[in-house]
Amino acid sequence: MASDKFDTDLEQQAANYSPLTPLSFLKRSAWVFPHKIAVKDDDGEFTYAQFYERCRRMASALQSLGIGRNDTVSVLCFNSHELLESHYSVPMAGAVLNALNTRLDAASIRFILQHGEARALLYDTEFEPLVAEAVKGLEHPPLRIAIAHQHPATPGMAAYDYESLIASGDPNFAWQKPHNEWDAISLCYTSGTTGDPKGVVYHHRGAYLSGMGNAMAFNMTPDTVYLWTLPMFHCNGWCYTWAITAVGGTHVCLRKVQSQAVLERIREDHVTHMCGAPVVLNLLVNDFSQAGVKLPTKVQFAVGGAAPPNVIIAKAGPVGFQITHLYGLTESYGPSTVCVWQTDWEGLELDDLAAKMARQGVGLYAMDDVQVLSRETGLPVPADGQTLGELAHRGNTLMKGYLKNPASTAKAFQDGWFRTGDLAVMHPDGYAEVKDRAKDIIISGGENISSKEVEDVLYRHPQVLEAAVVARPDERWGEVPCAFVCLKEGAPAVSEQDIVNFCRSGMASYKIPKAVVFGPLPKTSTGKIRKNILRDQARSGH
Amino acid sequence: MASDKFDTDLEQQAANYSPLTPLSFLKRSAWVFPHKIAVKDDDGEFTYAQFYERCRRMASALQSLGIGRNDTVSVLCFNSHELLESHYSVPMAGAVLNALNTRLDAASIRFILQHGEARALLYDTEFEPLVAEAVKGLEHPPLRIAIAHQHPATPGMAAYDYESLIASGDPNFAWQKPHNEWDAISLCYTSGTTGDPKGVVYHHRGAYLSGMGNAMAFNMTPDTVYLWTLPMFHCNGWCYTWAITAVGGTHVCLRKVQSQAVLERIREDHVTHMCGAPVVLNLLVNDFSQAGVKLPTKVQFAVGGAAPPNVIIAKAGPVGFQITHLYGLTESYGPSTVCVWQTDWEGLELDDLAAKMARQGVGLYAMDDVQVLSRETGLPVPADGQTLGELAHRGNTLMKGYLKNPASTAKAFQDGWFRTGDLAVMHPDGYAEVKDRAKDIIISGGENISSKEVEDVLYRHPQVLEAAVVARPDERWGEVPCAFVCLKEGAPAVSEQDIVNFCRSGMASYKIPKAVVFGPLPKTSTGKIRKNILRDQARSGH
Repeated sequence: MASDKFDTDLEQQAANYSPLTPLSFLKRSAWVFPHKIAVKDDDGEFTYAQFYERCRRMASALQSLGIGRNDTVSVLCFNSHELLESHYSVPMAGAVLNALNTRLDAASIRFILQHGEARALLYDTEFEPLVAEAVKGLEHPPLRIAIAHQHPATPGMAAYDYESLIASGDPNFAWQKPHNEWDAISLCYTSGTTGDPKGVVYHHRGAYLSGMGNAMAFNMTPDTVYLWTLPMFHCNGWCYTWAITAVGGTHVCLRKVQSQAVLERIREDHVTHMCGAPVVLNLLVNDFSQAGVKLPTKVQFAVGGAAPPNVIIAKAGPVGFQITHLYGLTESYGPSTVCVWQTDWEGLELDDLAAKMARQGVGLYAMDDVQVLSRETGLPVPADGQTLGELAHRGNTLMKGYLKNPASTAKAFQDGWFRTGDLAVMHPDGYAEVKDRAKDIIISGGENISSKEVEDVLYRHPQVLEAAVVARPDERWGEVPCAFVCLKEGAPAVSEQDIVNFCRSGMASYKIPKAVVFGPLPKTSTGKIRKNILRDQARSGH
Repeated sequence: MASDKFDTDLEQQAANYSPLTPLSFLKRSAWVFPHKIAVKDDDGEFTYAQFYERCRRMASALQSLGIGRNDTVSVLCFNSHELLESHYSVPMAGAVLNALNTRLDAASIRFILQHGEARALLYDTEFEPLVAEAVKGLEHPPLRIAIAHQHPATPGMAAYDYESLIASGDPNFAWQKPHNEWDAISLCYTSGTTGDPKGVVYHHRGAYLSGMGNAMAFNMTPDTVYLWTLPMFHCNGWCYTWAITAVGGTHVCLRKVQSQAVLERIREDHVTHMCGAPVVLNLLVNDFSQAGVKLPTKVQFAVGGAAPPNVIIAKAGPVGFQITHLYGLTESYGPSTVCVWQTDWEGLELDDLAAKMARQGVGLYAMDDVQVLSRETGLPVPADGQTLGELAHRGNTLMKGYLKNPASTAKAFQDGWFRTGDLAVMHPDGYAEVKDRAKDIIISGGENISSKEVEDVLYRHPQVLEAAVVARPDERWGEVPCAFVCLKEGAPAVSEQDIVNFCRSGMASYKIPKAVVFGPLPKTSTGKIRKNILRDQARSGH
């Protein structure tokens, strides 16, 4: 009997095989929901038919400017329909989208434009001085295309105007899928706290699978109305730029996150879903809670970047947010794990519930494996909720690698795993919990202290808005915890001793911060607290 | 500047690329929901941890019997946990699942076992006489494994017992994903009304994408409870065997579709979703409607195989079914299109609504393109709702091809399209509507008559349970329509003239059946009306 019968005369062909790409989502939704509102923005709204047409026009215009396969197109603007459109128009032209962090300084932008070899730069004229500074002295400055919302571009700064280019493009442009689903679709630079940013390359296959998986994990349907409180430049908006389009939902753009603006959008546009870092959730929950706001219907809020503090979980419910905790990295297209809700959590006391929900959880659909690996043996640690190891992933939604950086790529992918650099434990129920960044753990008298655990206690203090704990070198103990605390606006005065006393009731004595520094915390452009700066500060005693 | 920067040092590796396969769904749900009920059956229920363990055991047992990559394993049993398990255990062993239609006769089963080169046959002992007859005289009879629900296997008939094999297997069997996602996962024989059945080969990639897409199209979540009113042998249960597992829902097995049993399962198990052919929906809606049943909560019913008759759509709502119309073929993993609900249909009159819902609709997520192609030019017909053409598909959920049948495969895939053989029109809103099978169209005096259109009218007659219209040769007109009608049980007598008069008010006179034959309609094992038999009957004047 032929054992190769299933491999014979059954080859892939054009009818039954084509590359996976999230560009299909827009084509489909424009077909199925042509008259439905796809995008709402300050300056108007577009149906799916219009959204698709604008992207096809821009793709054809980019091609007519000589931009094609594997060319980098950078975009510098706030969450807006233009940035959303670029997630489709740029890859439809065969090119690679590089969404720039709007909080970067000129030097960082210059580094990225140069390293990424940007052929074109689409920028909101609001950022013109920054752009002018960034491109200064570049050997191959990118072709500049101005997005003139507030005011026209300064003569000589931009070669083209975004809307004019769209108008010049072909509304029926016959864009092509990538030749191969492994082709690059986007380039996202890490916001590393040290060293030059690294260029993370995403492929079409991963973006498709991430879009589908994120839509499913978040129960999205054509009725979904998604408010863009998460920057679209951040891992391509955790791939929700593509996921919302997949289900035919509505994107509501929001240029700046302010509580009042968010509340208006939720109420007027019937928002169902939103995402953000804990700092955003924090802000909204505190402001809404204080103002006695109750949202008209439950709003799903996916929080990621760090675990939501317990008190925020507690306050979110009464306001009307239903929190899902996601975890991920730039390298994993944003979310790679989700703290899936279990029905038997319903009866839990708040503290126990919050402890469950603060965990990073289980792999999303396209993850093959999420494990905590022993740093000695490289094998999974026991699922005892105790043994520390490094969180590692494998699956179809991990980057192609770092651009022009094979050494870092090789370091990130070892023995068939992507190493997250986060120290975690595996709980008996199969949920992973990150205890700390590998470099954030504090080792005091030979004991590991999780900075996150101490921070969790600090966040419970009623006057504390934000807290970060880092290691301070100590002659006797090696390291001791040092706390940096930012109090809420208008909070009554709190002393170092108050904080220490508060900690005493919530942790083992060796974990109690030996020093407490008050003041605002330094942050990266994506809102991560810059512990490297705090560490330097703790070390120098300031 | 290097233009290949995105193709250099960014190769696929074990950490960031692995074949797509629906086997991942079971692994994930067993990890995330180990204690949740995965499968309910007459003889018990299994959690996801148990379900997964049983499949791993069986996969290891199959391998120890020498079954591996590209070996065919056939299964003959009703919807049951064993058949569901086989959707995982067989491909986990690297083999290819061939779920047999339980309504086939021995000769057809023999043909399939021989053509598919079955290495093993798992069968419910209820089918033992059929199996004994089918394997008679086979040169390479398959290894027989008995599923002894009702009574043990006759000594000598089976080499192994299903439960003993499971008990002997390794609960921690380290199954492997297929080497390539294009590898075969299953083999489904068409229930063609003429000629030998053809062996449709599915691949792992398509089964994964179909599972994800079907779960999304039907808004499935971990709370989904799916009642198996659709045979699992039918296109692998339209891939819901995999989709329900993907979301971590509950499979409720049902060996035979009887209204009372269905009602009990819906009420006791809190069923949320089910699927079936129109004949099943028909039966349930009529019985429930007659008995004044109101389902406790809305149940989603996806109907496919043919459009639901208007009257059934009308009655389904009050009973508590929410109908979604799916369309597909064995070659497209079951559903390829879905009649997506549009919000502006809400205000429609019943007839207009039913007309909208009866359409086949738009492509599911993994379809790249669904078009109606002119049979003259091969190009899409105008979207005018009038011009007939052949419905054609391209996308990632179309078969690898027909097993050992390159000629038929080449005929099915032409010019980059899969040809469905269905005649359809494209409506201005982008929804395709099948008017007839190419071979079912009636050409009378040069005019096309859609047999389906005439049948739709017949179905509106209050005494008509089922109707089929075929061409009868006619000297003057070439062909004329001939109706075959099955009346409802206990319906008052209806004459041929009554039917003709009823038709007169609903269609152009040339479309009115020239003869009406009363009696039960011949059907295929999957419930399709066998028009070829009716055509012969009409031709011979009986």
